[in-house]
Amino acid sequence: MKRRALIPSFYIIDNRYFHRYYKIMTGLTPKEIRYMIREGTWDKPTVGLAPGYAQMNLVILPEKYAFDFLLFCQRNPKPCPVIEVLEKGSFLTDFSAKGADIRTDLPMYNIFINGKFADSKKDIVDLWSHDFVTFLLGCSFSFEEALLRANIPVRHIEEGKNVPMFITNLECNKAGIFSGKMVVTMRPIPKEKVFKAIQVTSRYPSVHGGPIHIGNPLSIGIKDLGSPDFGDAVSIKENEVPVFWACGVTPQIAVMNARPDICITHKPGHMFVSDILNEELATF
Amino acid sequence: MKRRALIPSFYIIDNRYFHRYYKIMTGLTPKEIRYMIREGTWDKPTVGLAPGYAQMNLVILPEKYAFDFLLFCQRNPKPCPVIEVLEKGSFLTDFSAKGADIRTDLPMYNIFINGKFADSKKDIVDLWSHDFVTFLLGCSFSFEEALLRANIPVRHIEEGKNVPMFITNLECNKAGIFSGKMVVTMRPIPKEKVFKAIQVTSRYPSVHGGPIHIGNPLSIGIKDLGSPDFGDAVSIKENEVPVFWACGVTPQIAVMNARPDICITHKPGHMFVSDILNEELATF
Repeated sequence: MKRRALIPSFYIIDNRYFHRYYKIMTGLTPKEIRYMIREGTWDKPTVGLAPGYAQMNLVILPEKYAFDFLLFCQRNPKPCPVIEVLEKGSFLTDFSAKGADIRTDLPMYNIFINGKFADSKKDIVDLWSHDFVTFLLGCSFSFEEALLRANIPVRHIEEGKNVPMFITNLECNKAGIFSGKMVVTMRPIPKEKVFKAIQVTSRYPSVHGGPIHIGNPLSIGIKDLGSPDFGDAVSIKENEVPVFWACGVTPQIAVMNARPDICITHKPGHMFVSDILNEELATF
Repeated sequence: MKRRALIPSFYIIDNRYFHRYYKIMTGLTPKEIRYMIREGTWDKPTVGLAPGYAQMNLVILPEKYAFDFLLFCQRNPKPCPVIEVLEKGSFLTDFSAKGADIRTDLPMYNIFINGKFADSKKDIVDLWSHDFVTFLLGCSFSFEEALLRANIPVRHIEEGKNVPMFITNLECNKAGIFSGKMVVTMRPIPKEKVFKAIQVTSRYPSVHGGPIHIGNPLSIGIKDLGSPDFGDAVSIKENEVPVFWACGVTPQIAVMNARPDICITHKPGHMFVSDILNEELATF
């Protein structure tokens, strides 16, 4: 039941292809999943695949922006938790998975030119440049699994929606050309489980860690919980408190603000499936 | 008694100047201490000063090496825990202390030219260049204080010595031009307190965190605990186990191996005294 709950139902309902292959895909190891993706068999979202394994956000930038971006992540570790950075020009991962090819092993890529969306692609082999630096960042899928395991409800999963995301009035720590407001995700948590939710997610600093705000959306510049900036609105029950976590969209917005010549990211939801277990990323 | 124990006695015995000013210095805030240092009143080690506040290792490198070095730290977080990186050319800290001047506010600096020690100086104002990038890294003083508070003995402090340091056979994760073996510190811990020592130090990931090895020096390439590569040998009692933590000398050795045109570090023991409390660096 719980594992099922990890799969937003709209994927299953709306997409016959997804439905047909999903059962096969969930039974595969991360390496097998990456192989299916590389072969072109799977170009759909990775949510719910390889339960227990960490999935990661992708940001690829030319070398001239790499130091500033790494510094931006170092200064904003909650929204931008760096898991792995590849050497200039390298497209093979090492720490997060031995020898995965970052150009082919994600289901879909978004290409941004001068800070504007230009194209989505199934691979980026033709676009690859010797001066590209690849960043893999933690993703909240990992701590959502931990919340569910601790019997804390995750509303957007229950309702088969994308997590609601909001641009706050919290300014990130600037680094070189990179700056921007912090983006947060919101999950309504039953009052009596709020402290447990803090404890559970604080164990995962490399996938956004503990919340950044609890209870008063206005104080972080959020006027209407019913109108998220990205994702879908979810219902909040009477005994529940809105809890806000730093979100991996933050670095993407900082990158767009900086208008680099080119930037390649994963397409939202189409993550890098790593060989690292979520528990390997946890503190004691 | 415990606070006293933080001051290696050889400083007090051997150095009248130190003895005379030490009582004044320990009563000062980090900001006041940095002022005394900036004014030239204090050029001695900072050990035992501003109890409760984090002290930091300093590495300054020209911009062309900065990305590789930051990446080296990201890939080797236990020996190289980054607390703050300043913007290119900036000499004023922000996160670790508001507006401290990195060129004057440490008691002594070491200058390395092409990877070789060249000089020690009381300030580096004349050497400063617009393309210098400053890194502040966590230091084990923080977790030693935590060990003492948990009633776990710290032998080199008891014996008024410098901590014994050993070059291991553990290869750091390479990043660009930076590579090298991991250097560790050793503290003998009573058998029944080993687990407590792991727990206490694991709370401080940004000051080296939990141990990297326990019990068998040979397995990490250490042949003789009586002959440390740096620092002093300490006595190990019969009921004690040698416990090894990653050491901040590791990045210094990686920098020397890379032979940069110029590199400036703190003189060992002459640290940057920050405004951050050790507890602010702790996980829950």
